[in-house]
Amino acid sequence: MDRTKLLALLEEVSTGAVPPAAALERLRGMPFEDLGFAKVDHHRGIRQGYPEAIFAAGKTPKQVSEIVGRIRAHGSNVLATRCSPEVVAAVLAEHPDAVHHDLARAITVTVTPPEPQTGFVVVGCAGTSDLPVAEEAAVTCEAYGCPIKRVYDVGVAGIHRLLGHHELFQSANAIIVCAGMEGALPSVVAGLVDVPVIAVPTSVGYGANFGGIAALLAMLNSCASGVSVVNIDNGFGAGMLASMINRIANRP
Amino acid sequence: MDRTKLLALLEEVSTGAVPPAAALERLRGMPFEDLGFAKVDHHRGIRQGYPEAIFAAGKTPKQVSEIVGRIRAHGSNVLATRCSPEVVAAVLAEHPDAVHHDLARAITVTVTPPEPQTGFVVVGCAGTSDLPVAEEAAVTCEAYGCPIKRVYDVGVAGIHRLLGHHELFQSANAIIVCAGMEGALPSVVAGLVDVPVIAVPTSVGYGANFGGIAALLAMLNSCASGVSVVNIDNGFGAGMLASMINRIANRP
Amino acid sequence: MDRTKLLALLEEVSTGAVPPAAALERLRGMPFEDLGFAKVDHHRGIRQGYPEAIFAAGKTPKQVSEIVGRIRAHGSNVLATRCSPEVVAAVLAEHPDAVHHDLARAITVTVTPPEPQTGFVVVGCAGTSDLPVAEEAAVTCEAYGCPIKRVYDVGVAGIHRLLGHHELFQSANAIIVCAGMEGALPSVVAGLVDVPVIAVPTSVGYGANFGGIAALLAMLNSCASGVSVVNIDNGFGAGMLASMINRIANRP
Amino acid sequence: MDRTKLLALLEEVSTGAVPPAAALERLRGMPFEDLGFAKVDHHRGIRQGYPEAIFAAGKTPKQVSEIVGRIRAHGSNVLATRCSPEVVAAVLAEHPDAVHHDLARAITVTVTPPEPQTGFVVVGCAGTSDLPVAEEAAVTCEAYGCPIKRVYDVGVAGIHRLLGHHELFQSANAIIVCAGMEGALPSVVAGLVDVPVIAVPTSVGYGANFGGIAALLAMLNSCASGVSVVNIDNGFGAGMLASMINRIANRP
Amino acid sequence: MDRTKLLALLEEVSTGAVPPAAALERLRGMPFEDLGFAKVDHHRGIRQGYPEAIFAAGKTPKQVSEIVGRIRAHGSNVLATRCSPEVVAAVLAEHPDAVHHDLARAITVTVTPPEPQTGFVVVGCAGTSDLPVAEEAAVTCEAYGCPIKRVYDVGVAGIHRLLGHHELFQSANAIIVCAGMEGALPSVVAGLVDVPVIAVPTSVGYGANFGGIAALLAMLNSCASGVSVVNIDNGFGAGMLASMINRIANRP
Amino acid sequence: MDRTKLLALLEEVSTGAVPPAAALERLRGMPFEDLGFAKVDHHRGIRQGYPEAIFAAGKTPKQVSEIVGRIRAHGSNVLATRCSPEVVAAVLAEHPDAVHHDLARAITVTVTPPEPQTGFVVVGCAGTSDLPVAEEAAVTCEAYGCPIKRVYDVGVAGIHRLLGHHELFQSANAIIVCAGMEGALPSVVAGLVDVPVIAVPTSVGYGANFGGIAALLAMLNSCASGVSVVNIDNGFGAGMLASMINRIANRP
Amino acid sequence: MDRTKLLALLEEVSTGAVPPAAALERLRGMPFEDLGFAKVDHHRGIRQGYPEAIFAAGKTPKQVSEIVGRIRAHGSNVLATRCSPEVVAAVLAEHPDAVHHDLARAITVTVTPPEPQTGFVVVGCAGTSDLPVAEEAAVTCEAYGCPIKRVYDVGVAGIHRLLGHHELFQSANAIIVCAGMEGALPSVVAGLVDVPVIAVPTSVGYGANFGGIAALLAMLNSCASGVSVVNIDNGFGAGMLASMINRIANRP
Amino acid sequence: MDRTKLLALLEEVSTGAVPPAAALERLRGMPFEDLGFAKVDHHRGIRQGYPEAIFAAGKTPKQVSEIVGRIRAHGSNVLATRCSPEVVAAVLAEHPDAVHHDLARAITVTVTPPEPQTGFVVVGCAGTSDLPVAEEAAVTCEAYGCPIKRVYDVGVAGIHRLLGHHELFQSANAIIVCAGMEGALPSVVAGLVDVPVIAVPTSVGYGANFGGIAALLAMLNSCASGVSVVNIDNGFGAGMLASMINRIANRP
Repeated sequence: MDRTKLLALLEEVSTGAVPPAAALERLRGMPFEDLGFAKVDHHRGIRQGYPEAIFAAGKTPKQVSEIVGRIRAHGSNVLATRCSPEVVAAVLAEHPDAVHHDLARAITVTVTPPEPQTGFVVVGCAGTSDLPVAEEAAVTCEAYGCPIKRVYDVGVAGIHRLLGHHELFQSANAIIVCAGMEGALPSVVAGLVDVPVIAVPTSVGYGANFGGIAALLAMLNSCASGVSVVNIDNGFGAGMLASMINRIANRP
Repeated sequence: MDRTKLLALLEEVSTGAVPPAAALERLRGMPFEDLGFAKVDHHRGIRQGYPEAIFAAGKTPKQVSEIVGRIRAHGSNVLATRCSPEVVAAVLAEHPDAVHHDLARAITVTVTPPEPQTGFVVVGCAGTSDLPVAEEAAVTCEAYGCPIKRVYDVGVAGIHRLLGHHELFQSANAIIVCAGMEGALPSVVAGLVDVPVIAVPTSVGYGANFGGIAALLAMLNSCASGVSVVNIDNGFGAGMLASMINRIANRP
Repeated sequence: MDRTKLLALLEEVSTGAVPPAAALERLRGMPFEDLGFAKVDHHRGIRQGYPEAIFAAGKTPKQVSEIVGRIRAHGSNVLATRCSPEVVAAVLAEHPDAVHHDLARAITVTVTPPEPQTGFVVVGCAGTSDLPVAEEAAVTCEAYGCPIKRVYDVGVAGIHRLLGHHELFQSANAIIVCAGMEGALPSVVAGLVDVPVIAVPTSVGYGANFGGIAALLAMLNSCASGVSVVNIDNGFGAGMLASMINRIANRP
Repeated sequence: MDRTKLLALLEEVSTGAVPPAAALERLRGMPFEDLGFAKVDHHRGIRQGYPEAIFAAGKTPKQVSEIVGRIRAHGSNVLATRCSPEVVAAVLAEHPDAVHHDLARAITVTVTPPEPQTGFVVVGCAGTSDLPVAEEAAVTCEAYGCPIKRVYDVGVAGIHRLLGHHELFQSANAIIVCAGMEGALPSVVAGLVDVPVIAVPTSVGYGANFGGIAALLAMLNSCASGVSVVNIDNGFGAGMLASMINRIANRP
Repeated sequence: MDRTKLLALLEEVSTGAVPPAAALERLRGMPFEDLGFAKVDHHRGIRQGYPEAIFAAGKTPKQVSEIVGRIRAHGSNVLATRCSPEVVAAVLAEHPDAVHHDLARAITVTVTPPEPQTGFVVVGCAGTSDLPVAEEAAVTCEAYGCPIKRVYDVGVAGIHRLLGHHELFQSANAIIVCAGMEGALPSVVAGLVDVPVIAVPTSVGYGANFGGIAALLAMLNSCASGVSVVNIDNGFGAGMLASMINRIANRP
Repeated sequence: MDRTKLLALLEEVSTGAVPPAAALERLRGMPFEDLGFAKVDHHRGIRQGYPEAIFAAGKTPKQVSEIVGRIRAHGSNVLATRCSPEVVAAVLAEHPDAVHHDLARAITVTVTPPEPQTGFVVVGCAGTSDLPVAEEAAVTCEAYGCPIKRVYDVGVAGIHRLLGHHELFQSANAIIVCAGMEGALPSVVAGLVDVPVIAVPTSVGYGANFGGIAALLAMLNSCASGVSVVNIDNGFGAGMLASMINRIANRP
Repeated sequence: MDRTKLLALLEEVSTGAVPPAAALERLRGMPFEDLGFAKVDHHRGIRQGYPEAIFAAGKTPKQVSEIVGRIRAHGSNVLATRCSPEVVAAVLAEHPDAVHHDLARAITVTVTPPEPQTGFVVVGCAGTSDLPVAEEAAVTCEAYGCPIKRVYDVGVAGIHRLLGHHELFQSANAIIVCAGMEGALPSVVAGLVDVPVIAVPTSVGYGANFGGIAALLAMLNSCASGVSVVNIDNGFGAGMLASMINRIANRP
Repeated sequence: MDRTKLLALLEEVSTGAVPPAAALERLRGMPFEDLGFAKVDHHRGIRQGYPEAIFAAGKTPKQVSEIVGRIRAHGSNVLATRCSPEVVAAVLAEHPDAVHHDLARAITVTVTPPEPQTGFVVVGCAGTSDLPVAEEAAVTCEAYGCPIKRVYDVGVAGIHRLLGHHELFQSANAIIVCAGMEGALPSVVAGLVDVPVIAVPTSVGYGANFGGIAALLAMLNSCASGVSVVNIDNGFGAGMLASMINRIANRP
């Protein structure tokens, strides 16, 4: 029951067309969400310019392209992640204004640019193997209007480069650190600064890495303060969370 | 907002004391649940005579005894499971009418006897080690008014005894089968009958049993039809579920 | 030894044609199951109109097609699950009256329609990724004559839609809830109603989902009452069990 | 090499007492950290009023008490977590101004009150078993000057109470959600709001809970946005992180 | 229905006292196992002198002592394993003729000595930590009449001692090898001989041993022929199996 | 140093051509195994007619074919397991007398037929999915001269068929039971007889089966006596072991 | 800030062009690593002739070829491991002087031959399946100038061959032992000698091998002294470490 | 058969007292190890002054004290690790010259001081919780005559202190790094130097640390070169290995 219908009912009560007791029954008989849902989802109303996200893995190119169409028809921006080359081809064919972010394996369609934020988020990783996850996080941040700075040349085996970025790290509102193998990088970064570190274990590694479990466990057990963890390879989730924190820092 | 308050508001609309638009605002501003909650929890109103359950493990004797007091003060029956000897002593001292079910490690307090059901549930296990779990299930069923029949002498290593209970199994509305070690019993039972089998892995065993995981996995992988599984040692959950199925069979 | 043969033997004893001691030896020498088996499997005799099931995964298209032929030759209905496109092609070529249920990856052949049941089962899931498992459950229910209602638009991240189906859930004889990722949906549903909830973890997810283990564990640990769990992606097993519960509710 | 020494050297260069090449050698020969360390740790200088933390588990009462003494001698506040009754007794005997937070199993000593922050963090959990972890988080926040609001009566099996707190959740700068068993609560909360949710799996549960792993996995696999996870029972880490986010929101 | 009763019934049929149809009904109405069970369990009749086994872990001293009493009242020997000092005290007090095997943590009561077998089984382990498991196996063999030879000084880190026992190993009918830590011993032994090796992983070890899993996995993956594995610390099961193999070798 | 060379040396000592001290040095300087190895491997001398085995998985068709050639050149029989169609084609092309066992995925080449044994081994499984493993075991037994009887129609969900084979099981010298899914079959079989049961978990199953782990754990935890376990899908190992046991029973 | 820039600054101080306090500020404002980094990485300056390593798995042939080009442009040798046939083709096409080590799946480019070392490392394994890992270790050693001796014919199932290499093992500066299956070989080798044994679990095996975990755990639990372990299939890491140990033995 | 006996036999052959063929039989009939064993164990003859080690965990105080007595009676030094207070009391009472190393939970008895080595090993850890493991490693090194330097104030969360020890690390012949929690320290250390790093995961931590598994996995997956790993808490093993490497560096 949207606002209009509810108002109509109340007006009928007001005019006496519907007695209060009958109105009460009609209210109680309504689908639950018609009464309260608008409020529940109200906060989403402030998200003008925010994209709706599609997790493309496991969907056919046709399915993804159709969902993209449906979302933009509602006037929303689109962020599709985990796009295979086939998905990319299908979406770009149908939506020529879609932008393909190659390294991030992502596609964005911008109907309304997101409200620009101040402050920034650092996205860091040690090297080429972790780049797809880091870029997924970076593209997600940008899709939500959150400025980012990339620091892709740091690793625990070259600790000095990490130290050189210290000031930048400390100025960020949040730091996303993607790491595979032994997953030590978030701990080292968090040991240097007083900024929330969102640790993203990647599935980079082999053998006793177990597809990212080694890194995941290392991050959950970090002895440094301010580290929290998202799922393995979940660059999107890290980007969403970092954007939220940056937006909170933008609250008046 | 309970019925009275909502009716009062509607009557104010009816009399013109509150204009529809203002009423709309007041409706929308109310705590969410006041509008819809009564309906959400309404089904609990039909549970006259059903106990409220307390999981006593990890609570102090004093805490359990106090919770028992609070529940019965509301007029509800009580079912406390996983009661240590200390908990039993504390509760019985405070509530002399409480009944201690020794093997089941459970306590019940009956304020209003549960509505009696027709039909019955079989509770089965292979032997003495699984008895505490089986009895927890049995006592739970009884606390919910569900008749039970115990079959505690069956095991895969003495298959003939199992076969001898075949008719009884087939007549039940549900069968609870508790088993530790290799957890094969539910499969064998479910292979004999067309009745829902609720499999309860127990933590009985050692070594590669891993505290009941071996039995849990065996039950989840049952090649027989009609088997579903609850948590390790969760006699209470199995009893609740079996009672629900028996009650469904009692629906007019 | 069916009834006829056993009676014939006893009559020979009665006429003196076979002395008691010789009859005893013949009785004992008979294959074990000839004495008692008819009773063991007797309950299967009441299953008129029920399908025999084939788990097609890991079988060649030719094998599946042949098994389908053998079953229908016995006058039984057929339900084949986990059918690859190749299996579907092979079976439909050989059995033109077979029905392919695309989303469910299932094939049915109906020789005798199953006895219709009253009551119904709800099959629920959060969205497109869990649909194949949910549909496997739904098709299984239907193959066993159990009416179902699909609720495929509910998820924990849109809790209001879930609440809107509350009445429907409470009226069902059983609810099948398929969920991947964190597997929280069955707990939330079971928290709303007093109806058996059959939780089906799906392998939808990635990283620390471990192919459905995260959802499986969440479901086994549900803090809500009435939840039991089947194997990951086991829509068929959930459908079988729900049909059994619904049939029990149909018992006179 | 602190500022003074480095300046002295440069002045010797300035006066010609040390030629540039010799100064270069002396610079390069200095212990690494003397050159750069002050900068590395500089940000810690802004932490006036922040406590130093002690993880008391596995330390003797005497050890903890001594460490408390050493920290306060430096003029820092103290936050000791996981304090057994013996540790509490020892510390209070030695430090009569220490404050014992019973439920949180924590001790604080305040030398300089932390700078008060605006905004607030919500700490939520479903009930009594998760309270020690939730309180550890709450006390940690307070020790870092971060205002908190406790919401301890929410759970997935009573979804309406959760919905009733919706506005409060949305107003927070961060939400800490502690949950054991199936760990579904953070997902449901994050599905309602646009605020960072710090999920803390607790070791509450049994059987296939595996000491909190079930909850941990559920949280890592959350299908809702904005959820990140800390180690099992790590209320302290969640409190630290939430305080950081709140402080970021306090940045001018 | 034992032979006598069944014969009596047939004789009544023979005399006409019971008509064939009535006899059929009585036959079918009998408990299932009465018809066929004697045959099922017949092989147990040849086990004269074999003990009945009690797994004492998790039973109270009183319970164990009572079960011992019940078994010997049937004229059977008794073998109780995993006996705590309390269990030992209780059983010996009640059954002064019981024999306590200290290292094996076992008790035996011999009513009828088992039929002596020819051939022998070797029980081997590397040293003191594995002795309780090895002795449990040894005492079990002896309780079943199977001669054994102990080889308790062999380990992979002292390979020459192992080689020195080569002839003895090759002459055995089966070899039980108990090993903890890395569990390599059974592979090395099986590489030397053509005799069945029953590998018993023990829980001796720490850290990544995981209570015997490391040894268990090593044994399951043995690259040598003739190795099979029983549960961790299951000396009893290994002894039973070795005795069976030795008895098979004693078959005429 | 074979017998001839060693004798020659001793004769040179005898004739004085080599002084004792020099002989000692030559003895000690010889490769270690020349002194002792003949004895170590002597038992292999009795294996006339036994095949050498090749595990073909992970080897190229060319490699397998070459190894087959090398073995038969030594006069040994050959048993190659886990042969892909490509391996089969390559071996048959090169060795036209090789026999391909289709279901078992095995190839045998018989140069000298193995010495025939008396007694027999039962190879059992529940159905079509486990057949490749069961047949690998069966073919292995035959390659070692061990007679087998196949029982491929038994499963825990059709317990009566199992009971019907009781006498056959009891007459065997060993029983190989292959089972996937919940792996309960070996326990049920071992509960019926006094014969060593070699349990072979198969990787048949899905979801929480974990590629055979569920069956493996169930078998390791069997509550029936006489069960030991080999690696998942290790039909070859089970066949080797059963042949050994049967051969032991053939010892004079 | 390299040496030149730092000297220039000091000279400006010396001439009075920059006052000491200003120089101090400029020093502190410099990127951290410019001050201290040269020292940190100084030890790498002694690595003349050492290759830079590329882990080619997960990189495209083009990427690997480009990285090879970049490294050699810096005058360094190259060692690329885990090279697929496509990578090999691409690198050889672009770098005709590159050497492909087939079994090791490695490519080396030698600009400056590494400084030759004395002493040697033994690389051992049981047979053909472990060869790729063993060869990766061997080629790595050679690329770092470390002499090696291959012993590829040893296994626990043929213990005598192992013993025959005893003297060689004892003379090495380190022994790399690669083993899959049950991973027992490093323990047996380490039991024979007083030389560091670097154990490399390989992923050779199936079923309960879990891709090398069985071997990994066995090696971590070795009861022999001097064994340490690297990741599954990490021949490169073992080679690096063995080379380091050999180089340490070459220290003057 | 030691050298003397073998020589005597050869002399009898030389004198004709034993004919060559008879000598051959006597040679072959001798226990295997008499021929070859002396050689196998010969290298142990060079270990003058090395202790024999006792793993005291799981042994009674009396047992440990007796083993200490037996070892020193052979003239060997003793190193007992994992000594409980009861074990310490028992050993010191019986062996007043034994030295108790409190933090290391170790006891040493020195009959002959070990041959002093040159060079040294660094033993490092982050703090108090890892000290028992680090000290076990340190005491082990010293018992084998290997000089050590302790660096106990380094951790990834205080990276500058680590950097300050860089020169010391680089000068060592091996570095033992003990770390619990996320286990990142060995990677960071190995990233700084070209020296073998022996990583010892400790069981320090909680929750998803799983008793040291998180640290163990991190160390096995180290992206830095020269890291190998021993079992969780295995300070003894690390000390043994480091001593071996240091001794290799002492080889002439």
